Amino acid sequence: MITFDTRPDGYKHWKLAFDGPVATLSMDVREDAGLSPEYKLKLNSYDLGVDIELADALQRIRFEHPEVHAVVVTSLKERIFCAGANIMMLRGSSHGAKVNFCKYTNETRLAIEDASATSGLRFLAALNGICAGGGYELALACDEILLVDDGNSAVSLPEAPLLGVLPGTGGLTRVVDKRHVRRDIADFFSTLVEGVKGKRAVEWKLVDGVYPTSRFKEAVAKRARELAATSDRPASGPGIALNSLNPTVTDGALTYSAVTLAITRGKRTAELTVHAPSGQQPATPDEILKAGDQFWPLRAFRELDDALLRLRVNEPEIGTVVIRTDGDRDAVLAIDATLVAHRSHWLVREIIAFMRRTLKRLDLTARSFFAFIEPGSAFAGSLFELALAADRSYMLHDDAEENAIALSPMNAGPLTMSNGLTRLETRFLDEQARVRELLQHDGPFNAAEAQEAGLVTFAPDEIDWDDEVRLAVEARTAFSPDAMTGLEANLRFAGPETMETKIFGRLTAWQNWIFQRPNAVGDKGALKVYGQQGRPEFDWKRT
Amino acid sequence: MITFDTRPDGYKHWKLAFDGPVATLSMDVREDAGLSPEYKLKLNSYDLGVDIELADALQRIRFEHPEVHAVVVTSLKERIFCAGANIMMLRGSSHGAKVNFCKYTNETRLAIEDASATSGLRFLAALNGICAGGGYELALACDEILLVDDGNSAVSLPEAPLLGVLPGTGGLTRVVDKRHVRRDIADFFSTLVEGVKGKRAVEWKLVDGVYPTSRFKEAVAKRARELAATSDRPASGPGIALNSLNPTVTDGALTYSAVTLAITRGKRTAELTVHAPSGQQPATPDEILKAGDQFWPLRAFRELDDALLRLRVNEPEIGTVVIRTDGDRDAVLAIDATLVAHRSHWLVREIIAFMRRTLKRLDLTARSFFAFIEPGSAFAGSLFELALAADRSYMLHDDAEENAIALSPMNAGPLTMSNGLTRLETRFLDEQARVRELLQHDGPFNAAEAQEAGLVTFAPDEIDWDDEVRLAVEARTAFSPDAMTGLEANLRFAGPETMETKIFGRLTAWQNWIFQRPNAVGDKGALKVYGQQGRPEFDWKRT
Repeated sequence: MITFDTRPDGYKHWKLAFDGPVATLSMDVREDAGLSPEYKLKLNSYDLGVDIELADALQRIRFEHPEVHAVVVTSLKERIFCAGANIMMLRGSSHGAKVNFCKYTNETRLAIEDASATSGLRFLAALNGICAGGGYELALACDEILLVDDGNSAVSLPEAPLLGVLPGTGGLTRVVDKRHVRRDIADFFSTLVEGVKGKRAVEWKLVDGVYPTSRFKEAVAKRARELAATSDRPASGPGIALNSLNPTVTDGALTYSAVTLAITRGKRTAELTVHAPSGQQPATPDEILKAGDQFWPLRAFRELDDALLRLRVNEPEIGTVVIRTDGDRDAVLAIDATLVAHRSHWLVREIIAFMRRTLKRLDLTARSFFAFIEPGSAFAGSLFELALAADRSYMLHDDAEENAIALSPMNAGPLTMSNGLTRLETRFLDEQARVRELLQHDGPFNAAEAQEAGLVTFAPDEIDWDDEVRLAVEARTAFSPDAMTGLEANLRFAGPETMETKIFGRLTAWQNWIFQRPNAVGDKGALKVYGQQGRPEFDWKRT
Repeated sequence: MITFDTRPDGYKHWKLAFDGPVATLSMDVREDAGLSPEYKLKLNSYDLGVDIELADALQRIRFEHPEVHAVVVTSLKERIFCAGANIMMLRGSSHGAKVNFCKYTNETRLAIEDASATSGLRFLAALNGICAGGGYELALACDEILLVDDGNSAVSLPEAPLLGVLPGTGGLTRVVDKRHVRRDIADFFSTLVEGVKGKRAVEWKLVDGVYPTSRFKEAVAKRARELAATSDRPASGPGIALNSLNPTVTDGALTYSAVTLAITRGKRTAELTVHAPSGQQPATPDEILKAGDQFWPLRAFRELDDALLRLRVNEPEIGTVVIRTDGDRDAVLAIDATLVAHRSHWLVREIIAFMRRTLKRLDLTARSFFAFIEPGSAFAGSLFELALAADRSYMLHDDAEENAIALSPMNAGPLTMSNGLTRLETRFLDEQARVRELLQHDGPFNAAEAQEAGLVTFAPDEIDWDDEVRLAVEARTAFSPDAMTGLEANLRFAGPETMETKIFGRLTAWQNWIFQRPNAVGDKGALKVYGQQGRPEFDWKRT
């Protein structure tokens, strides 16, 4: 079972060092410390375990070190920055494991860009050696890239020519869409095993600067300080500690403080429940700082994030997830009001950004989600985003008309999807007047009102409820899991496409296609024979 | 060998009738007239042959019948509009054939939308019976959809629940992105085998109106007349006749009047050459009307389109195509000037739109294209779009500095890509000032100037040329064809995504993924067992 819980003093592959406003995150992968003993993580190549540490380091810099304004991403290995995803690991992985690995590493790269865009945390890739494939894709996620000019160090995306697969972590998209490398140059570059170095790498916009070995460290340090100066993060801490989540794990359930994931393997379903806060809640930045990682939205969404990740990698056969909430709806609305009131405070900003990323993780999770809204639930404001993120929502139209949902300002902007729109805007494309009207609605919506407003899919009455929701889940679990994955990947992202959705839609879908082609993974496929005797044999038919 | 040449009096599956400004295009598929005897085209289901006729009919309405202002798309079968793509055909098709089939049908659907957006030709889908899968996707491409309310006729996208694949012809995208059906309703609808009928279909925005059988024909006729009245097409003809292209076909070449496609099977390469016009060219709308389909841009691009289609379906192993042009560069520029000067004339508008669609077909062709620009070539204006569309361009830097390319106003707007940008804008994303400057450049660019301007990828001198271009092609043909397809599908479409690129990127890539999953096409996959004894057996793992 893979877990996502780590901390800097337990890192095997990264060193995190601090020097005033600049943190340095150095890759130093331990060859023999991969998640599986089947491969060696040579040349700073990585597997999911390496990336879990990277994701953790990013989180800790954001929450525990507000005084950090810029992060240098570099390597402690001589003449090698990073060789990319480990090929032996990819070769030995199932299709699902490859897809999940790429999805997670993509989310981590996007989290770097989110930290820059949202938190004013600047990232400088300091490529002190060879930077290939996923290594260059990590660099592409940074704000700027400096490359050592030592006659040898190059950036490259050799996946296509060498392995017959695509650079799967956003490389193709970022080269043309973020760095605006010309498409014909990008085409040439992406078929060049040896990559591009020196001045040509700058001319082609692949990196932002090159420096000889003798001046490299100094140039990096100078540029890092300059980038740090552009940040709007606080001049000093303290931050808050992110403690381990420590869920109770049994065969049938993951139980956290505010989240429960209960699994019914025989039916291939799970129930994901989020509990609203209770009791007195912090209402000022000082109180929130004091509460730290126990402040409900941070605690609940960290638990939700962890539950989603574990579901993805450890429970591949659980295809349908029912989402519920319970507790005090008004307490959620009060928390939302606090968050919105103090959203410019660095910590509140981080908490909101984390909630946003977690909800995006839900959007990108290849499982069917149905929200069940029943009396006693707390689908309000930020928790109502769970219902909006679900593929469908069922709301019990109770005779007493007490079952209700509510919107809050958290539905109006802070929790945008990957497409740049809120979930309400995506739901009502080109009906912005309706979105505004719904957000101005006074008080909760009962089931009839919610359905009339289009906020829920179905609102069965008490006589129909049990059968209708049971049959809906049963039907869903019987469909082809692949068809549901494709269906959801298309319907969830209506509206505009962004670089982020392009990475998860266009690029990832093509990558997944290639990841099961015989030309890549067949006995004579390029990924299979790489590094072994013999050359790949291709079926030459183009599609 | 599949050909794309047909004409109304040879249609097997469609009837085209005219009544003043309204044409009626009626589906009446002959069961026993599929492209293969292996399947029967029951219930107005279709294969590529049916769609080739549809595409032809659309072309002819545009060019031969300018007096037509609206098209009713309906069926001559009782109680059945169209059952979608033929399942037995899909089941028996290779992966590549499925992918090519879906690509072509997608292009045809988009051509309907292009005719509406570009030519003011309105389309009304008159669903006089059951409308399933690809049948509904055809309707979705029309401007409006009317459905008969007979207690039985429904619209549906049953692919996912029934066959374990996606609606592959834009259905999922158009439901949410064009018709703005709410994503949760779209999710429910797309899992509903029996579909949705009557008022509910209207409430859910799946159709624009329903009428009882007794009033259906009248309502369709009335709405068609109303739609026709919004058109800006000419009140009367004449149009121009689209005659057969009649290329000379040998084992190694397709030879048209202005286009040659020469194939070298042993090297898996082809050379595509377009010849510039020579002699006196029409310069006014009257002269263009008189020249008809022999007017060079229409003739050359019709031939190019046909060559690309034949390449796609008949030569799957030809992975790399060298594009050349020859002839009088200035003659191309003169033609471009004529086209731009008269672009508001209906026929010129149609010719430009056809050129644009053909170039999009090139962008969407899953082969590597390299443009070779040598002395005597005619890469100017609209023909230079071929070099811009290519994955790379190589321009000989000749000692005499006579080798040249040129831009024209045709590079500045009329020939946009699927992403809504011109190829120059896509090439220089976020450098709009540079694009404007290049378009204002006086006269041709020699090789040094073209490379400095970023208009070509490489400009080897006479000493290097032969080796460099030979090695480039050899290297390209040795790469995994799948990796090249994925690479090109990502790099060619930098910049914004539109509904059109979403259909070819996100949707198609997922569809292609599913089209090779064992859950669809394995021995127990849903597509394989449909209609046979037994139920599909799924590997339940989600990715």
